[in-house]
Order: sequence, then structure tokens, then C-alpha cells
Amino acid sequence: MNKLTLIKIGGNVIDNPDALSRFLTAFASVPGSKLLVHGGGKIATQVAEKLGIETTMIDGRRITDQPMLDVVTMVYGGLVNKQLVARLQALDINAIGMTGADAGTVLAHKRPVNEIDYGLVGDIDEVDSGQIQFFLRQGLTPVFAPITYGKAGELFNTNADTMASAIAVDMVRHNEVTLVYCFEKRGVLADPADDDSVIATLTPDRYAEHKAAGTINKGMIPKLDNAFNAIRNGVMRVIICHADDVAAAVLHGAGTTLTL
Amino acid sequence: MNKLTLIKIGGNVIDNPDALSRFLTAFASVPGSKLLVHGGGKIATQVAEKLGIETTMIDGRRITDQPMLDVVTMVYGGLVNKQLVARLQALDINAIGMTGADAGTVLAHKRPVNEIDYGLVGDIDEVDSGQIQFFLRQGLTPVFAPITYGKAGELFNTNADTMASAIAVDMVRHNEVTLVYCFEKRGVLADPADDDSVIATLTPDRYAEHKAAGTINKGMIPKLDNAFNAIRNGVMRVIICHADDVAAAVLHGAGTTLTL
Repeated sequence: MNKLTLIKIGGNVIDNPDALSRFLTAFASVPGSKLLVHGGGKIATQVAEKLGIETTMIDGRRITDQPMLDVVTMVYGGLVNKQLVARLQALDINAIGMTGADAGTVLAHKRPVNEIDYGLVGDIDEVDSGQIQFFLRQGLTPVFAPITYGKAGELFNTNADTMASAIAVDMVRHNEVTLVYCFEKRGVLADPADDDSVIATLTPDRYAEHKAAGTINKGMIPKLDNAFNAIRNGVMRVIICHADDVAAAVLHGAGTTLTL
Repeated sequence: MNKLTLIKIGGNVIDNPDALSRFLTAFASVPGSKLLVHGGGKIATQVAEKLGIETTMIDGRRITDQPMLDVVTMVYGGLVNKQLVARLQALDINAIGMTGADAGTVLAHKRPVNEIDYGLVGDIDEVDSGQIQFFLRQGLTPVFAPITYGKAGELFNTNADTMASAIAVDMVRHNEVTLVYCFEKRGVLADPADDDSVIATLTPDRYAEHKAAGTINKGMIPKLDNAFNAIRNGVMRVIICHADDVAAAVLHGAGTTLTL
């Protein structure tokens, strides 16, 4: 079966030019079919500020009104996405920048309002993995901005971790999928104060223990929930590692590997 | 041979929500393989202003420094491109938004400095029509923002008319190509004061006469030069028409048709 490595990077990599250069070189060296999902970083907030649009966050999620969606579409779908694509081209990776709207790849609907109205945030309905596979077979490397679309032609802001996980799960139809979440630590830590305490492998049981003990903190919980969900749905392995270690993680298992 | 209709729209359509809705419906009804190249409109200038970036134009061309290129990449490559794609998806057109960097489709280099330094403006070296044809064969409709890339991973601002013409000329390898430039008039006018004086067909000789008589004005000259250049290089026909008439132009020859 084909192998696919799907890598997600967040704002901490995008906001740091040196970290981004190191990441792109490492990404280019990952062998075989690959796909990148990127977050946005601080640029969206900075651009919104300059345009006089206020940023509201609840539980780490941006509340997205129409002006903020326009900023996110500009910055994530335009500036960040196209800069990544052009730089990957220079590294001989034939990248193609996309949002979920492009080629109808990631369809969503506006998140229903319960306690919080997140605004124009999309919950994913369907990934067209056949379409994405067709790009991969052509030797292209899709680079996804975390934006989805709805049936009425709307665009939606979508969490990049969730988007990576949803794409990974659907790509299981065509590939043996490794999902890699890059973040600012070397892996999931047993002791948050000790960067060397990387947990090499994490099972659902050990994860539950760490949550109970409070060593795995708030920001990590949705990430790990997403990750375990991906494994339960057929993703072969999920790796959580530092962006600098992405090639080492894929090839030699650096960082934290999640298994069932 | 396959037929391809390549349509270019400018800012006057993008800036007017009603005109854009009418255009998208007409575009969706054009039969067969098609491709859209869009300009940017006033939004880039407005966003640049709000961000405190000054817009300098020389002979109708934007002078592009790095902050302005970032704005163009955000607005053309992000906001405008993705809104067009999502709206076409709702019209059952499987659109894929691209810049020249995506899938390495339109390679360029920084325009050499002669009398004017246009800044980060790209002159096109090469179109990968094989790659574009591959998208068309898959039933996708490429939607290009007027941005190209260079070998070192740079992005460049590129005139949308020129980009449409360059893509059309290279697509001749795979298709019988019709190139349609939409603008704010019903066609090329014999009398600029009379909107009903549309010239049905224009040859290089008649074009030269109109230029000498001054009836064809400054803004039209680069557009028509591009258009005749495309025909000389194998494009079957070029149509210049109002965006509202695009389906009628392709099917029944509304507007001005350029021939050799």
C-alpha cells in the first residue's frame, strides 16, 4: 500500500523565519508522498489589528466574524500558503497550495451555536480523499490552509489540528498514513518543566493517567484527543514532535508516538 | 482536439457584487473545459491603505515592494481567489484556486530594471501547460490569481492580462483555445463615446488604423497587443466583451472577436 506522511505545523513555526527554514528543509527530505497542513500564527492577529478588527479568543479558538474570516482567508489562504508553496518549489517539492474549497476537498458546515457562537467556523463533513490522492499520484504535495467551505459557497475558518486529523483519517482509504503534529516541544512531556522528559510512546490508558495527574495540560488535550481519534479511525501512527525533528521523527521515531 | 475557453476578469467585475454574481453564473454555463484568470480590483489598494502601505502606479502598473507584494498575495491569492473558488463550487464547478507557484504552473523572473523599477513584478518564463491540462482532464476548473514565482522561491506580482495570454498560448499544445478578456464595455468601440459602436471583428490592420486615429486608447493598447500576440502564437480566437456577455460571446460571438 502507498505510504503517506501528513504533517501539521502551527503558528510557532510560521512566525519564526529560522524555524520555518529548518522545517521546510526537513519536510523536503521526508521520503515518499506527503502533505502539509499549516496554521496561521500571529500574522492574522497583527493584520486584523492594523485593519481595526478585534480578535476574540475563547478556549484558544478564534471567534470568526466576517471581517475576521476575510483576514484569515487573506493571511492563511493567501500570504502564508503561497509563501510556503513558493519556498517548497525552490526545494524541488512540487507543492500545490489549497484550502478545503479547492477541488472540493474539505466540505464543512457552520458550527451549530450551543453555549458559544464561534461565528464562521466550519465543522468538517467530508474529505474528498480521492481528489487528494489524485494530486499525490501526480507527484504533487498538497499544502492546506485551515479553511473549509460550505455548500452555499461560504468559506469557514477551521482548526488546523482538526483539519489535519480529518484529512489523515480519510486518506486511510488509499494509504498507510502517518500523521505528524509539530509543536514547540520535543514531544509530549511526562514532566512539563523538563524538556528531556519526552514520553516515547503514549497509549490511551497512559494518556488518561497523565490527564488525571494534570501533567498533560489544556492546550495538549484537544491535540491528543484529535490524535487518538485519528488512530482509532485507521491512521497507522501519530507522532508529536518538534518541527526541527520532523524528518528524524518519521524515519527514526523521535518525539512521542501514539498507539492504541 | 479538446476545446478550452480561458476567461480573464478584472477588478471592475470583482469590485461589484452584482456584476460578479452575474459573471459567475455566466461562467458556470460556458460549456466544456474552462479556466479563469482574475485581477484584483480596489480591495488590494484599500487593504494596503489601511495597513499604511502606499500604492504607487506607473502607466497603470502597480509598483510592487515587499509589503505591497504581501498585500497582493493576501488579497489576490487569498481573499479574492478563495471566494471565487467557493462560489464556483456552489455553482457545481469544481474550481481549484491557484497562483503560478502552485504545481509550478507559471514560472517567472523579476522584471529587469530599465527606466522604471517595477519592484517585485514577474515576467513569465514558462507555463507548465501539461500540469494545467492534467487538472482540466480531471474535470477541475483552474482559477488563477495573477501571481507567479521565481526559482529561488520568491513570489511576483504579474499583470493578469499578460498571465491570461501566456497561459492561453501554452495551452495551445493541448487544446483549441478561445481567450476571452472581460472588461467594462461591450467590446472594442469604434467611437469611444458610443457604447453601441462595438467593432465585431478586429484585424491587426484595422487595429493599427484605430491606434493611428486615437480611437483605441492607452488602457486598451497593452490589452490588444497581448491579444494579438496570443493569436499570432496559436490561440484560435480572442474575444473582448462585457463580463455579463461572456456566455453569449463564447457561444454566439458577442463582443469584439480578434483574428489575423
